Amino acid sequence: MARIGIAGIGGRMGKLLAEEIAAAGAALAGGTARGDDPAVLFAASDVVIDFTHAHAAPVHAAAAVAAGTPLVLGSSGLSDAEEAAVRDAASHVAIVYAANFSPGVNLMLAIAERMAASLPGADYDAEIVEMHHRQKVDAPSGTAVALGRAVAAGRGEALRMESGRDGHTGPRQTGTVGFAALRGGQVVGEHTLLFAAGSEHIALTHRSFDRRVYATGAVRAALWVVGKPPGLYGMKDVLGM
Amino acid sequence: MARIGIAGIGGRMGKLLAEEIAAAGAALAGGTARGDDPAVLFAASDVVIDFTHAHAAPVHAAAAVAAGTPLVLGSSGLSDAEEAAVRDAASHVAIVYAANFSPGVNLMLAIAERMAASLPGADYDAEIVEMHHRQKVDAPSGTAVALGRAVAAGRGEALRMESGRDGHTGPRQTGTVGFAALRGGQVVGEHTLLFAAGSEHIALTHRSFDRRVYATGAVRAALWVVGKPPGLYGMKDVLGM
Amino acid sequence: MARIGIAGIGGRMGKLLAEEIAAAGAALAGGTARGDDPAVLFAASDVVIDFTHAHAAPVHAAAAVAAGTPLVLGSSGLSDAEEAAVRDAASHVAIVYAANFSPGVNLMLAIAERMAASLPGADYDAEIVEMHHRQKVDAPSGTAVALGRAVAAGRGEALRMESGRDGHTGPRQTGTVGFAALRGGQVVGEHTLLFAAGSEHIALTHRSFDRRVYATGAVRAALWVVGKPPGLYGMKDVLGM
Amino acid sequence: MARIGIAGIGGRMGKLLAEEIAAAGAALAGGTARGDDPAVLFAASDVVIDFTHAHAAPVHAAAAVAAGTPLVLGSSGLSDAEEAAVRDAASHVAIVYAANFSPGVNLMLAIAERMAASLPGADYDAEIVEMHHRQKVDAPSGTAVALGRAVAAGRGEALRMESGRDGHTGPRQTGTVGFAALRGGQVVGEHTLLFAAGSEHIALTHRSFDRRVYATGAVRAALWVVGKPPGLYGMKDVLGM
Repeated sequence: MARIGIAGIGGRMGKLLAEEIAAAGAALAGGTARGDDPAVLFAASDVVIDFTHAHAAPVHAAAAVAAGTPLVLGSSGLSDAEEAAVRDAASHVAIVYAANFSPGVNLMLAIAERMAASLPGADYDAEIVEMHHRQKVDAPSGTAVALGRAVAAGRGEALRMESGRDGHTGPRQTGTVGFAALRGGQVVGEHTLLFAAGSEHIALTHRSFDRRVYATGAVRAALWVVGKPPGLYGMKDVLGM
Repeated sequence: MARIGIAGIGGRMGKLLAEEIAAAGAALAGGTARGDDPAVLFAASDVVIDFTHAHAAPVHAAAAVAAGTPLVLGSSGLSDAEEAAVRDAASHVAIVYAANFSPGVNLMLAIAERMAASLPGADYDAEIVEMHHRQKVDAPSGTAVALGRAVAAGRGEALRMESGRDGHTGPRQTGTVGFAALRGGQVVGEHTLLFAAGSEHIALTHRSFDRRVYATGAVRAALWVVGKPPGLYGMKDVLGM
Repeated sequence: MARIGIAGIGGRMGKLLAEEIAAAGAALAGGTARGDDPAVLFAASDVVIDFTHAHAAPVHAAAAVAAGTPLVLGSSGLSDAEEAAVRDAASHVAIVYAANFSPGVNLMLAIAERMAASLPGADYDAEIVEMHHRQKVDAPSGTAVALGRAVAAGRGEALRMESGRDGHTGPRQTGTVGFAALRGGQVVGEHTLLFAAGSEHIALTHRSFDRRVYATGAVRAALWVVGKPPGLYGMKDVLGM
Repeated sequence: MARIGIAGIGGRMGKLLAEEIAAAGAALAGGTARGDDPAVLFAASDVVIDFTHAHAAPVHAAAAVAAGTPLVLGSSGLSDAEEAAVRDAASHVAIVYAANFSPGVNLMLAIAERMAASLPGADYDAEIVEMHHRQKVDAPSGTAVALGRAVAAGRGEALRMESGRDGHTGPRQTGTVGFAALRGGQVVGEHTLLFAAGSEHIALTHRSFDRRVYATGAVRAALWVVGKPPGLYGMKDVLGM
């Protein structure tokens, strides 16, 4: 029975993770609060789940390497330096790093890539609009950026973003991906990817109603990554897509 | 240079087809009006396009067999008997028969099947809602039914429809596909396929703004089917999906 | 402090009502289960709330008259005969009868009437699409029908419904209101009213995320109706719209 | 028969205006191209319509004053100084100035104000998302800003905008109006105003399919404003809302 540790066990996500670990029949190895030394948690766990903050990601990645304990990382908004630290750590220990742990969102990412491969950027403008609750502090969401990367991958090019249009923007650039963010109410997460040509629009929409789906997916990733060789994995790997 | 004939050349669709044949650099072999003998048209053409009415489909299919001329068939609402007649004719001559000739809609059909394969019917209720202009006389649209069949194919089962809910319906049956039809204004065609689970919804939407896209696709199918062996083909074959 | 009784206190809605009565600082007078004699409850209450079933409405209306106790009625799908019985009872006792107790939905009803008054039925086709959870047993929803009535009232005519389109429907009739019903997942309630003309569409959408909003509104109606003269009231009256 | 002049008669909008003037049975007084002296046009016209550019608005407003000829102004994106110049001119001559000349959009503006008056900003976050064709060079659209002002007016406060969210935004501010802009395809204009509370969402959406509706409305405004006393008028005045 795998022992799973939780970084930030006292938060809203930490509590959901603890419930889902129990529901999955796994063991809760323990958890940290802000200020605790993560080394103790990583030593006591077969795998640790971290949904705390972007700036904690390098610290937890280093602790994972030191203890030889795999990490499931769900924080968003990592800087380039923080992402590089995670990437480096993944050459020594198995890390699952995903913008979104919902199976539905990961299906959406796979389909977005497929659609982009069939709908050339010269004809179809790709636009992503996301909505989240009023407390969210950054934009666009990590999942929206992941969708944009999937579109770019489907087109075989690097992602060029047009985000936060305001004021004199000039005409839309061909081949870019547009991003727009709505904030309000208690929306758990809504994402729409739209391909707009002159004669037709094709859109893919995902709406999450329950944050618990992220906890369920993270626990599934944790159980999957125990025993895996070092490397940076995504939910595609976990779900076998 | 292929010579393409048009059944019902005087109608709205007939005129668009004539323009798209010219735009594609093909030759217009001629056309029929209501009451004309189709045999003359089929003899003079390398391929004939028919978007007239469901009840004309068996007549045109027979004329195609008699003349050895391939047929592109875009009528919707065929009865079982009419569809059987088309199927029989296709063992003697090449016929492309599709509910919708738009490349975007056909991409949607392919993706619908893929999504249904990943989203089990026990958890995700599949619902299809379509909207068309106020003149449309049947429901659900041929494209909506094709979407339902794609969902059933993805799940590896036969399509079970729940269409036109009204009055005491009882609770929704697990594994069925629901259909709803809106009519109004001059909508060329809008289709949404929704997978609804308790914790998330995933939807795929297509909106057509210009009927011309159907004519473009039909001419593409006509050019493709010339010289093909007998058989019943779909737009998947034409588009190489 | 008003004493509020609950018909069907053991059901999902009954439990929410009991919680909202407490939250409003009112007193719970008691409740009935299936088979109980409602006379006892009506005698012990200043007002009774009934969200049970359409066929219980005449029974509770009669009990309200007998006891001289006002009634808040939230059941949907009443037959003409059941509705007539409620209407008769309302000449002897105050009854609030509404298709939907959410303030947002009632705002939507008021606006629907206003929009219909400005958008003539000869140019703008009115279509209503609603979605509810997979357990719902009737269609269209009571709220959808109320929306249709608001449209007809705004146009100064009687409601003519086109509901459950399936098969050969013929072209859309001018001036009717179309209804379409989606069922799936755990959707609490979504309603869209669309006015579709050739050159523009105008739509009004309401999405409920929490059934509790109905209980809150019903308790508000119960507190309002105590002491009112006999008559049939709606949420418009309660909300002072 | 009113003689109507068109500033910028050679552009896409100028051509539609000329057609709609003819359709309304009015007379075309003439038009200007870039570089022409507007004084000649204003002297020859009973009213002039200007849909050219924001920076031409003060020039045309001054010409309207000099000639005593009313002006219908449909340019968007005016700076504060340009708007002040128009306002000053309107104390000497009648000017209709509107963000959008479609009757449907103006109905939406009236309803937006009504909704905002009923849905307090402390509970309901107001968000506006608009989509336009890929050539549009500014964001948010003039109509989106007009919607935001209608919301603020309904709440009895000044408009505070949150537009173009990107990067670290912090949590949403209570009482502001959020703006998001999508660009793509050939979309004539789509606007959605969403009120998002925790337990319900209410949205109002307008989709324009044909730019001609703006020309029709501008000609209607031109015919209405001839003979009116000096003042700054809106489409509300023209439509008698």
